Amino acid sequence: MFELDPAFALTSEALPGLALCEARLQLDARFPWIVLIPRIDRAFELEDLSVEERAMLMAEIVVAGEALRAVGAALGRPVEKLNVGQLGNITRQLHVHIVGRRQDDLCWPGPVWGQGTAEAYASETLQMALSAAANVLEA
Amino acid sequence: MFELDPAFALTSEALPGLALCEARLQLDARFPWIVLIPRIDRAFELEDLSVEERAMLMAEIVVAGEALRAVGAALGRPVEKLNVGQLGNITRQLHVHIVGRRQDDLCWPGPVWGQGTAEAYASETLQMALSAAANVLEA
Repeated sequence: MFELDPAFALTSEALPGLALCEARLQLDARFPWIVLIPRIDRAFELEDLSVEERAMLMAEIVVAGEALRAVGAALGRPVEKLNVGQLGNITRQLHVHIVGRRQDDLCWPGPVWGQGTAEAYASETLQMALSAAANVLEA
Repeated sequence: MFELDPAFALTSEALPGLALCEARLQLDARFPWIVLIPRIDRAFELEDLSVEERAMLMAEIVVAGEALRAVGAALGRPVEKLNVGQLGNITRQLHVHIVGRRQDDLCWPGPVWGQGTAEAYASETLQMALSAAANVLEA
């Protein structure tokens, strides 16, 4: 039975779920950032998914990218590049990061993982980001 | 018409190509590391691929992971975790990194991208790595 690793609740806020994945907005105002977690028990690597589940995950990664473009536009910081990462070195449950990047962001052109400290969203900005993302994910 | 970005030739060595992607071994002895570049002109993001191409890419990412497990085994350093990244902040042509990680590697548990300096392979080790990867990619 699938249970979300409790680590995700500490760093992210739930978004509307997709067919395969839980979707969560990373609570880091530095970057629009979504984490997708396939609802598959004991999946740690992409190879642990079936071919059908992998295709669904790929489709949901692309949708998450669209959602991040909507978040960036809503916050007046359009996304210039998408970054996708599946690491899992710390939190082992299979999850995929999709991050909206800009040339003026704090980590450009390096990756965001393990860099610096998350910045809290102002509560109004967080609501705008959640709403913009949800509109795309629910479509 | 697809042309490989010349940046890849500076940092990696060709492996047998797959149905969709050029495959290259990153010339960095710190980690078994394969870069896949879909042979699709003007692709920068996953969303620039068709649904069929995305499914092929996902399948080839999984094959590249198997190849890295073979490389790690051949070099006496079995892969403990796979990391997958699609960034493209510097080299824009769409490409996917697949990296074999170990808890005793130099960047664990952080990502490898943008960290430290590549270490050259000893030529015999490089041949072993290329051969182990090719055996899987050609299968």
